[in-house]
Amino acid sequence: MSNLVHSFSLDAILEEHRRSRPENVASICEGQILTYAQLADRVIRLANALEDAGVGKGDRVLWAGQNHSGILECLIAAGKLGAMVCPLNWRQTAEEIAFVIDDLQPKIIIWQEREIGDPVKAALASAKHRAAQTLALDAQGAGSYEHFVTTGAQQERERVVDANLPALVIYTAAFEGRPNGAMLSQTAIMWQDLEIIDIQQMSCETRFLQCGPLFHIGSFQVFMAIFHIGGTNVFVRRWDTQLVAEAIQEHRCNRAFIFIQTAQELAKFNADGRYDLKSVCTASFCPEWDAMATIIPERSMFGYGQTEVTGLLAWTYYGLGKALGRFGKTGPIAQIRIFDDQGNELPQGETGEIVVRGPTVMQGYWNRPELNAQRHRNGWHRTNDLGRREADGSLSFIGPKALMIKTGVENVYPAEVEACLRSHPAVADCGVIGVPDEKWVQSVKAIVCLKPDQQVSADDLINHCRERIASYKKPRFIEFADSIPRLPSGGVDYALLDKNYGGGGYPGGSTRQH
Amino acid sequence: MSNLVHSFSLDAILEEHRRSRPENVASICEGQILTYAQLADRVIRLANALEDAGVGKGDRVLWAGQNHSGILECLIAAGKLGAMVCPLNWRQTAEEIAFVIDDLQPKIIIWQEREIGDPVKAALASAKHRAAQTLALDAQGAGSYEHFVTTGAQQERERVVDANLPALVIYTAAFEGRPNGAMLSQTAIMWQDLEIIDIQQMSCETRFLQCGPLFHIGSFQVFMAIFHIGGTNVFVRRWDTQLVAEAIQEHRCNRAFIFIQTAQELAKFNADGRYDLKSVCTASFCPEWDAMATIIPERSMFGYGQTEVTGLLAWTYYGLGKALGRFGKTGPIAQIRIFDDQGNELPQGETGEIVVRGPTVMQGYWNRPELNAQRHRNGWHRTNDLGRREADGSLSFIGPKALMIKTGVENVYPAEVEACLRSHPAVADCGVIGVPDEKWVQSVKAIVCLKPDQQVSADDLINHCRERIASYKKPRFIEFADSIPRLPSGGVDYALLDKNYGGGGYPGGSTRQH
Repeated sequence: MSNLVHSFSLDAILEEHRRSRPENVASICEGQILTYAQLADRVIRLANALEDAGVGKGDRVLWAGQNHSGILECLIAAGKLGAMVCPLNWRQTAEEIAFVIDDLQPKIIIWQEREIGDPVKAALASAKHRAAQTLALDAQGAGSYEHFVTTGAQQERERVVDANLPALVIYTAAFEGRPNGAMLSQTAIMWQDLEIIDIQQMSCETRFLQCGPLFHIGSFQVFMAIFHIGGTNVFVRRWDTQLVAEAIQEHRCNRAFIFIQTAQELAKFNADGRYDLKSVCTASFCPEWDAMATIIPERSMFGYGQTEVTGLLAWTYYGLGKALGRFGKTGPIAQIRIFDDQGNELPQGETGEIVVRGPTVMQGYWNRPELNAQRHRNGWHRTNDLGRREADGSLSFIGPKALMIKTGVENVYPAEVEACLRSHPAVADCGVIGVPDEKWVQSVKAIVCLKPDQQVSADDLINHCRERIASYKKPRFIEFADSIPRLPSGGVDYALLDKNYGGGGYPGGSTRQH
Repeated sequence: MSNLVHSFSLDAILEEHRRSRPENVASICEGQILTYAQLADRVIRLANALEDAGVGKGDRVLWAGQNHSGILECLIAAGKLGAMVCPLNWRQTAEEIAFVIDDLQPKIIIWQEREIGDPVKAALASAKHRAAQTLALDAQGAGSYEHFVTTGAQQERERVVDANLPALVIYTAAFEGRPNGAMLSQTAIMWQDLEIIDIQQMSCETRFLQCGPLFHIGSFQVFMAIFHIGGTNVFVRRWDTQLVAEAIQEHRCNRAFIFIQTAQELAKFNADGRYDLKSVCTASFCPEWDAMATIIPERSMFGYGQTEVTGLLAWTYYGLGKALGRFGKTGPIAQIRIFDDQGNELPQGETGEIVVRGPTVMQGYWNRPELNAQRHRNGWHRTNDLGRREADGSLSFIGPKALMIKTGVENVYPAEVEACLRSHPAVADCGVIGVPDEKWVQSVKAIVCLKPDQQVSADDLINHCRERIASYKKPRFIEFADSIPRLPSGGVDYALLDKNYGGGGYPGGSTRQH
């Protein structure tokens, strides 16, 4: 007996804000300040305009722009129609953007000229798909987003919103060689909101600076949680030290989601104190960061998750494990288990695939029925990530499953072997790969970089591992190198290691999937 | 596409606790300490035992006992089977308990001998309905609850839990002359949990003393929120100053839900400091209560709600209105509106029926199809309560709709007229009733008690009202009295006022419904 009387949606939240806190400021963006009452009026107009433009259940709207309050308007308005919104990763090349346009086939594209106009226009020209309408974000008058909103009818129309339908599409890791759009429901967003509101101690008085890219689930969820609790989202179009400093000072932002590196950059930029940044406070549960005195630490938002489950599900906030992984404990909105390849649950201490069940799990990837059948099996979402439940119940994230090495019937995870090698006092850095082996499928090979003036033999390192991890995991071959190639993200560049040191023969194909 | 991969339930939470925090203490009750791993094992046994006893979807289990960890076990176990648990109001008479037994027709009754054995046994004997099994709570061996649990099979059985089915039945106000069992789903409980966890800043380190009666939704929801976040529930079977003092000292409870009057009683009882009660702290967001230094104030849990919507939905925590009502603002899990008798939304400042939509709304009353059709109409739950949205968006609760006076086509709410009269400096107390009027259905009559040495005429008081509220609301008659009769709850005893001062002719019957 679940029916209309039990329904709840982003639109319902907005309409309640209109009544409970009409004068609260919902968003500040490019000089436009909207109260919740004004936002609610605009969303009614936008939903009607989208409907009149032919957008209905299952249709897509592509937001080809940077951070903007319009993303919130589009998400709620499209959600009223059962349609989806995708915030584009605008850091991509024209070719990558064209792929998304052809894959998503959006009915409406809202696009931004400033800063990102060149690749976006090139993609619009080269894509095979043609949207029914393209709306310019940084323009006025006919053909602009603003004009489109304001020409929508102000009269609310009777609609029944199904919050379990896909509402948000975020493109994520390239399994099978192409990015995939994870479809998330309003229900998923709302459950995750409630978790984040608690962890971040958000209230309707929180003025949150949104400077992280909203095409990332981490930034997106924080932004939605602020909306959900009736706080103020202050948008800057992208991370830029001066834009950020100006926004904090002008709008008295009291929260932000800024990593420690960028926080330091901001502090350096403002060394002469010409901007007043004191309104941004730290989280009270992380006193060790108070010295920074300006920024919410990233640590309170640290844990394990992925776009496909609407962000983090295990958080250090819920218990910091004493073991290797330090990815925290499962929060109150999901179940997490560790499965072997046959789908059986593994006990504490054993490494396997992290699987998830709960209301925040995606509704599948857009237009990927075969991949969806792989990822959702027997009521569990397979993350394609490897993890381990530690003795204290905390979760260790080991690494992507695609990096697994197969030796005989055993699975070996490079991260585990690397951690063991790094515990040797002579080792500065290392990377572990699989090399083809006629008898055992693959053998484990380690590329090791020693500390200056340190010496150790390959045999000594192999013995070091034999004493600490299962014998089949120990490297069979060790090669010394001056450095380990790394990706811009800081992770080991395994593809280059494979190429340079003879890696190959991985399960599922001769090369590893990243 | 909502399916098993998105499912979430109380059982899912418990199984996640088993993995994430197996050693955390879930409950302390009558000397029995259960970790989450032990609780999970017991719930598996209990669910299997219930299933083997014939309990299935839609069946009822009656908990005819006081506060006890078994209520949690039964709720989760029954939920796995699609069955419901009702915690009985054990303060009722044998006759009232027999009504519940015959109305609910439970398949299993767990009953308590100590303290409440006499009325419960009399009810079991006089009720027409016979449960398939009655299990004794404070006994051991065959026929006892404990024996029933431990004889259940320990092997988990494959089941798909539907968290939207009714899981909890709590009997509530007597509309139409008899109490009705509001059926609440696991989904409703879980949403409300997340709100309470945030408001009360609960964590897995919270050790909450459950001394309020668990047949009340207020106590029940706090207890479920502690379970949800993995904290410890410490049960005392009922409020008793000594039991409470002992439990706080022995189990280092750091939270409790104790009203200020009982807190004062506790402080007086412990004036000589023989119990160490310092572990129970106040809520940090209510510094004005810190002087008490022992108890969470009730104020953080104050607002508007009812059993039928799983407790409070508007909370002072979300914004304390500056207006008359002070019932706070709507929290993040519901929509609240004010409707007129035709089901149209009323604007700010006008009084009408409070209606609710959202995931915490009940699944209806048990076995009351006609009443359910009245309460759930056009996708809104009608609370039967009168309220008003104030200019700042906060909610005023005026009173039960049943207290409404009808004069001509207008509705008059006694609370509103009383507030106006009380604002006169000479008035100490008052009560407003309707008296039959041949022309206007009813007329408004006020019974007024003046302050010592104060004098004012009836005409002056009527003029005072005419200047402040709509003319049709002003009293037509005023009678002076030495005191206003009050109920044990502190509310005006309108039935006695009606009897003594000629009240009657109320809409829907000649007497008012309470």
